[in-house]
Amino acid sequence: MKYRVGIDLGGTFIKFGLVDEEYNILFHNNIPTKTERTPEEIMDDMATHAVKLYTEYGLKKTDIEGIGIGSPGTVDAGKGVVIYSNNFGWNDVNLADYISGKTGHEVRISNDANCATLGEVKAGAAKECRNCILITLGTGVGGGVVINGNIFEGGHAGGAELGHTMLIAGGEKCTCGRNGCLEAYASASALIRDTKRAALDNIHSGIWRICAGDHKRIDGKTVFDAAKTGDKTAIKVLENYISYLGDGIVDMVNIFRPDKVLISGGVCEQGDTLTVPLRAYVRNNCFASEASFIPEIEIAKLGNKAGIIGAASLFD
Amino acid sequence: MKYRVGIDLGGTFIKFGLVDEEYNILFHNNIPTKTERTPEEIMDDMATHAVKLYTEYGLKKTDIEGIGIGSPGTVDAGKGVVIYSNNFGWNDVNLADYISGKTGHEVRISNDANCATLGEVKAGAAKECRNCILITLGTGVGGGVVINGNIFEGGHAGGAELGHTMLIAGGEKCTCGRNGCLEAYASASALIRDTKRAALDNIHSGIWRICAGDHKRIDGKTVFDAAKTGDKTAIKVLENYISYLGDGIVDMVNIFRPDKVLISGGVCEQGDTLTVPLRAYVRNNCFASEASFIPEIEIAKLGNKAGIIGAASLFD
Repeated sequence: MKYRVGIDLGGTFIKFGLVDEEYNILFHNNIPTKTERTPEEIMDDMATHAVKLYTEYGLKKTDIEGIGIGSPGTVDAGKGVVIYSNNFGWNDVNLADYISGKTGHEVRISNDANCATLGEVKAGAAKECRNCILITLGTGVGGGVVINGNIFEGGHAGGAELGHTMLIAGGEKCTCGRNGCLEAYASASALIRDTKRAALDNIHSGIWRICAGDHKRIDGKTVFDAAKTGDKTAIKVLENYISYLGDGIVDMVNIFRPDKVLISGGVCEQGDTLTVPLRAYVRNNCFASEASFIPEIEIAKLGNKAGIIGAASLFD
Repeated sequence: MKYRVGIDLGGTFIKFGLVDEEYNILFHNNIPTKTERTPEEIMDDMATHAVKLYTEYGLKKTDIEGIGIGSPGTVDAGKGVVIYSNNFGWNDVNLADYISGKTGHEVRISNDANCATLGEVKAGAAKECRNCILITLGTGVGGGVVINGNIFEGGHAGGAELGHTMLIAGGEKCTCGRNGCLEAYASASALIRDTKRAALDNIHSGIWRICAGDHKRIDGKTVFDAAKTGDKTAIKVLENYISYLGDGIVDMVNIFRPDKVLISGGVCEQGDTLTVPLRAYVRNNCFASEASFIPEIEIAKLGNKAGIIGAASLFD
């Protein structure tokens, strides 16, 4: 049996998992990231805990095939370098070489969204798919692309930024500097913004009942709850959201024609309320939809484990 | 020396080329397509002329490694089938098997835009690039994607439809059924539409001088000619066009991060007038543009030959 260590380097926690050949997480651990530390302090901590993880489980160095890491930001997987991470304030950090030097293990890295996609392909909602797109709906909109069973890294680092494709040119301000990206309409933050705006424009909206009259309490769930009560304002916000996200998915189908499209993030807890109209929208809008393959749209199912399993799977 | 026959199956002409290992077209021929014929009649003609081409050049059947074909429409390259072509009225035509049966040669097929991209990568403006995107600006907006030196076919037939990605959701009607695709803003047809509209809205615009007062004479060149005279209406139409096309290219950079992006089509005859502002726009708008690789934008240079050379290169 071969074992790998998978690491999901997050903004709040660094998650470690000991992963076997069948993509089971045998043993896991979390430590706080404390991004205010220097890259070296964070990486020293990662190296120490990676080794500690398999040692505590009773394995030796030679039992471990390698350490895989999913990192946020723009990652050059070939060189093992994190080129740029806004949240970490990292520029050109030699993550793979550093951890390899400290542990004596081979280290492979990729972007965190890519790793999550690979994890879902190996052991989650897209198991046995060769081609898969994952769109993460959180503060921003991230994406991962698996082609022929492998992460698609782009010709140069900085590809697969699926959230930063145009949806409404000249529209809402996006974090990337453009106006109108998918992220500015389909992220959880965008849904909350649009719910607030609609509520402020409609003082009689049922949204106000759900948030107890305090617009600061509006979150990604509010609009779904209000829509369930039949509130027309909320239903309209939700219809718009489904068309935004749907158009983003249609774009990815027209470009990649994958076996499956997965979505993840808190908003996906709504399940069928989200996926049923979304599937109908995508089916109706794909290019040559009568003649061509239309991928299923499903909710990712591994949650936080996807990143760890995907990072470990960089050694497949 | 190995030789291949490359065929570009166009709506008006079928173009045949005898291509050597160094991507030179040694001998070529065109026949009218006459799309009103049955698929079998067209394919019989293709088979006959493919054999005639190399026979007339003095080669034997055994000198020919195979016949490559670039076909319009949705192509399943793996199966050798044209799934759907609107212009030809084709549905599930077994192009590769049929031509192979008639000629005794191995036949490989791909979408025509894909073949043109591969041709430019092998012998044109993207020579020695491993990763390249070609965007064709004609009646519609087509696209081809080369990843790691090979055509990216998508997970299922019907990928790489780069023209059918959203630019302004809910905007101009697109031929694919959606409203607001890149094609509906960045095609030559869209540029002509926008030039006409701007002229009709501005009776004093210099556009009227260029088209001799007849809006039916407005073509893809009119707005460039009017802008050169300093006409503000034309300059505004052109600025909008560059931002539309620029946003489409930025999207493809954010997704694929290729070595180069090529553009082709009649509008590209404008050269620097188009490419200089386009490059500036793309550089300013790509994701993480300070930290990441920004591909060059160049005009494709093989013209009609790209499709023939690319089709022949399906045997590389």
